[in-house]
Amino acid sequence: MSEVIEKAKKANAAKEEFVHQTTENKNEALSLIAEALRSHQDDILEENRKDIEMGKEKGFSPALLDRLSLSPERLNDIADAITLLIKLNDPVGDSLETIRKENGLLIEKVRVPLGVVGMIYEARPNVTVDAATLCLKTGNACVLRGSSSAINSNKALVRVIRAALDNSVLPKDAVQLIEDTSKETAKQLFTLNDGLDVLIPRGGKNLINMVVRESTVPVLETGAGNCHLFIDESAQSAMAQQVVINAKTQRPSVCNAIETVLIHENWADQHTKDLLQKLEEAGVKIKGDQTVCELLPSAEPAEELDWETEFLAPLISIKTVKSLDEAIRHIHRYGTRHSEAILTENEENARFFLTSVDAAAVYHNASTRFTDGFEFGYGAEIGISTQKLHARGPMGLEALTSSKYIIKGNGQIRS
Amino acid sequence: MSEVIEKAKKANAAKEEFVHQTTENKNEALSLIAEALRSHQDDILEENRKDIEMGKEKGFSPALLDRLSLSPERLNDIADAITLLIKLNDPVGDSLETIRKENGLLIEKVRVPLGVVGMIYEARPNVTVDAATLCLKTGNACVLRGSSSAINSNKALVRVIRAALDNSVLPKDAVQLIEDTSKETAKQLFTLNDGLDVLIPRGGKNLINMVVRESTVPVLETGAGNCHLFIDESAQSAMAQQVVINAKTQRPSVCNAIETVLIHENWADQHTKDLLQKLEEAGVKIKGDQTVCELLPSAEPAEELDWETEFLAPLISIKTVKSLDEAIRHIHRYGTRHSEAILTENEENARFFLTSVDAAAVYHNASTRFTDGFEFGYGAEIGISTQKLHARGPMGLEALTSSKYIIKGNGQIRS
Repeated sequence: MSEVIEKAKKANAAKEEFVHQTTENKNEALSLIAEALRSHQDDILEENRKDIEMGKEKGFSPALLDRLSLSPERLNDIADAITLLIKLNDPVGDSLETIRKENGLLIEKVRVPLGVVGMIYEARPNVTVDAATLCLKTGNACVLRGSSSAINSNKALVRVIRAALDNSVLPKDAVQLIEDTSKETAKQLFTLNDGLDVLIPRGGKNLINMVVRESTVPVLETGAGNCHLFIDESAQSAMAQQVVINAKTQRPSVCNAIETVLIHENWADQHTKDLLQKLEEAGVKIKGDQTVCELLPSAEPAEELDWETEFLAPLISIKTVKSLDEAIRHIHRYGTRHSEAILTENEENARFFLTSVDAAAVYHNASTRFTDGFEFGYGAEIGISTQKLHARGPMGLEALTSSKYIIKGNGQIRS
Repeated sequence: MSEVIEKAKKANAAKEEFVHQTTENKNEALSLIAEALRSHQDDILEENRKDIEMGKEKGFSPALLDRLSLSPERLNDIADAITLLIKLNDPVGDSLETIRKENGLLIEKVRVPLGVVGMIYEARPNVTVDAATLCLKTGNACVLRGSSSAINSNKALVRVIRAALDNSVLPKDAVQLIEDTSKETAKQLFTLNDGLDVLIPRGGKNLINMVVRESTVPVLETGAGNCHLFIDESAQSAMAQQVVINAKTQRPSVCNAIETVLIHENWADQHTKDLLQKLEEAGVKIKGDQTVCELLPSAEPAEELDWETEFLAPLISIKTVKSLDEAIRHIHRYGTRHSEAILTENEENARFFLTSVDAAAVYHNASTRFTDGFEFGYGAEIGISTQKLHARGPMGLEALTSSKYIIKGNGQIRS
């Protein structure tokens, strides 16, 4: 039996035990895991160093090496996140709807775990702990398939997690790591409809697109963010500067940062000039259309590709538009339906934009950087969904649950 | 441009207009459609007769011809269903969550249409009207791809619907019918991720499996029902007879009818004998294990395939099991996670069964035939989902919606 089939089978056996566990049991296991991650810090860091060495040999970029690295501080943060997770409400068992029929039937819709969650992800070893603990909190078993670059760290982390589960009443087989990181094992997961209830890819666009394209298992898609901010003709200059600078520069590498600013052609030239200068002062490179390049000679002319690209860097594309409609058309053409904002003092234009723009989060007079599970108060985040089924926007614990109708009767039949 | 691409483009243009329509506008359009279906009855029936003729020439079975047939009564029922649909609550715009942050940001999660719904379905022309009107009620544009056997009926129905929309304020392009019913157009829809927000197959297992396997567009799966009923040792004999007969014979051709009965070996032989006799009297053919065949000599021995098959006919497979656990294992091995029932007077066993069995609907002491949108009080049904993401069980209008976060501020930035 292949490793994938074998471990999926074990996860499915664990899932059957798991549905009978209480919130207390799950929280106790999470607390043991947090403790174990702290007490086994040295072993984990030693295994992590192997991955770093391998990465250096392979010539990984400093950014990639950084993502791969664990440290005592990072491990502490990971353990702290579990302590916070314990405090969150367990959604499993929540009653979503109660229907009492005239014939006496009682129909209740309740939240249940998804079952077995498959997770395919890239370099960051913290995703291993995140995924396992979010799944455990929501009563799900998981099959984790990380990348080869983090395999030693992932093995160490899962060893520690499973040993902690062994001291708890939860089945330790609820957490499975696929150690064979060849492409073949990822592909096996794509079509394991018998063994996985859902598959969640976390990583770059290429990974996510491959999973969406090839998986027959239902996918929870966490997407890229080519986010826009539209400055309407009535927008306040000071607010525009403040919000654009924040949305672009506060953390350029994340999906809710903006990549393109669209400016209404009737917004004062002086306002545009001031904004461009502030962006430059903040270290942002500007690619603009003709109007922008005329106002700021140091700007580079934007090309078609620039409107499509999620820069994830201190780089921004800026375009002048003739109308609100043109702005919306641009957003629908190039956007990824993540987070889109309008700055305007015109309430009717704001309403039209918020209704028209098809995205997980739409903003009026605020930075797009708030699209985030923690900012929304969900306490934990599995990712930000840009799909429309199941969950859209920041996904908290509820996104890792399904529902079930429980019907109680005393012999009712249908007439 | 191919027909599929062209019509998907039109549907997408209509979708952008559609998000600004009110419930009143949508209901008025639905009312015009109901009226038009009544006043154009003759034209529609004439086109339907062509399909029937074609079907006869091709040697369709009487059952299939029946599914294909329209009549004045059936058209009236279809129009009446629209009148009922008008009275249902419009879920679009419902507020699902309101978060007020300390910095003054107001975050609201509201229901929005899915966008453009693709629908691939088989012979029944009533699905054309069902799909179009359910989509219109929820603010969705739709691209319909019915089967070649119903093409004349479908064209006539969509002509009438679009003409009615033309007299309303809704965009008539919100309803599109693909007239080329070659396999090629279905396949084009499978990968039209730019043009469809969701794809819903309605029809037999083969159609649904093909869509799940080949589609990269997110799928709302409506699945088959290989449903079980487990008779625990403490089950009442009279209740068992009543519920089993109902769940099997009240309408054997539907997905929530049972296909297999599992009987605890400690249930009295006399009870089993009585049940088997009642089933035979009700015209049900029995395939059983050794115990069953010994008690009822006219029963045929069940084979492996019989446990897997959704008979959809007056035919049932019956097996004796040693324990509740064995019953659950059998259900998980052969079931399709649709509707599963236990008959027992033991509350602890009921609780264990309801928690353990992984299905959209689980029953204690009642017939599985209640798994139905109308029975649950949803007023309309798009199908019964056996998947776990987005919607599970009977899908009402809400299953045709997504959500969106609308965030209003006055210049808030993230620190």
